[in-house]
Amino acid sequence: MKDLATIKDFDKKVEYIKSHIASVKDFPKEGILFRDITTLLEDHEAFKETIDLLTEVYKDEKLDYVVAADARGFLFGSALAYTLGTGLVLVRKKGKLPRECYSQEYDLEYGSATLELSKDSLHKGDKVLLLDDLLATGGTAGAMIELVKKTGAVIDSFAFIIDLFDLGGAKLIEDKYHVDVLSLVKFPGH
Amino acid sequence: MKDLATIKDFDKKVEYIKSHIASVKDFPKEGILFRDITTLLEDHEAFKETIDLLTEVYKDEKLDYVVAADARGFLFGSALAYTLGTGLVLVRKKGKLPRECYSQEYDLEYGSATLELSKDSLHKGDKVLLLDDLLATGGTAGAMIELVKKTGAVIDSFAFIIDLFDLGGAKLIEDKYHVDVLSLVKFPGH
Repeated sequence: MKDLATIKDFDKKVEYIKSHIASVKDFPKEGILFRDITTLLEDHEAFKETIDLLTEVYKDEKLDYVVAADARGFLFGSALAYTLGTGLVLVRKKGKLPRECYSQEYDLEYGSATLELSKDSLHKGDKVLLLDDLLATGGTAGAMIELVKKTGAVIDSFAFIIDLFDLGGAKLIEDKYHVDVLSLVKFPGH
Repeated sequence: MKDLATIKDFDKKVEYIKSHIASVKDFPKEGILFRDITTLLEDHEAFKETIDLLTEVYKDEKLDYVVAADARGFLFGSALAYTLGTGLVLVRKKGKLPRECYSQEYDLEYGSATLELSKDSLHKGDKVLLLDDLLATGGTAGAMIELVKKTGAVIDSFAFIIDLFDLGGAKLIEDKYHVDVLSLVKFPGH
């Protein structure tokens, strides 16, 4: 990805995007302060700024695919694949993809879940950007990386709109998986 | 929406889009021929053609929002909101939206489900396009229309990538709800 310091008004654009993300108390359960990207999507100028900023970061990378996570990753991945001129590949919850899939289980706070990727969607040497709306502890992100690695595709980096920066997700992705992380907006997770 | 007869090569573009939709036997259960839009999304030229064609149909309508259905509607709604310069509003499955919602139950083949829309996402007089990937019997579409009507927004039309044309969905939407339907690609549902 591009050196962020070379992008005009990067910090100012990020603050503008951040100002359109609502914070909702006690959702989905008591004690959680939920960062709500629907208010960002609903504002046509802030949504456009988000997509344009990500496009500027990645437009010279010659990417083949944006790989987006079910379901909120789709909300940014579709527009970004369009502006970058790439295909859009989905990582979905178990049972949603109709063709033969790779599966990857990962741990949740209580129990586990499984993500899937169509086996024939990516090929060896494809250059891909992974994308999700929010980075917390990195469980979902790690499972996405494991899935993409099974195809032999090359991961350029992993982009997030929001990083709950004190939950350790970015460090996990960079140290364990050696994948670069870009997150536009930082919020505390505790 | 624009008169489709005035769009250059409309039928040819639709055939091109249709040729990128895979048909998968016996998914999600035996006897069902599943129309798979992931192969369309994965092809960057066919995905771009799909978004560009929808953009051409709606660009002069002065729309305020694209309202997209959870989750496959997001895959086209995000890019289309970007190209049209509108906000993106989500209709989601129950319990996913953090702010106060309108709820609408609708019938499934066995049982029922509930869709939700944030109460403050749309306002009286907003001009909106509704969007989902696939029209079958129109159950989900009807629930989306009921939700949007509660806000007082004005529905320009309802767009689908695929219409399973012999299942009666388009007739239901037009006759019961008096909403115009645009579907790009037609397949038999039986």
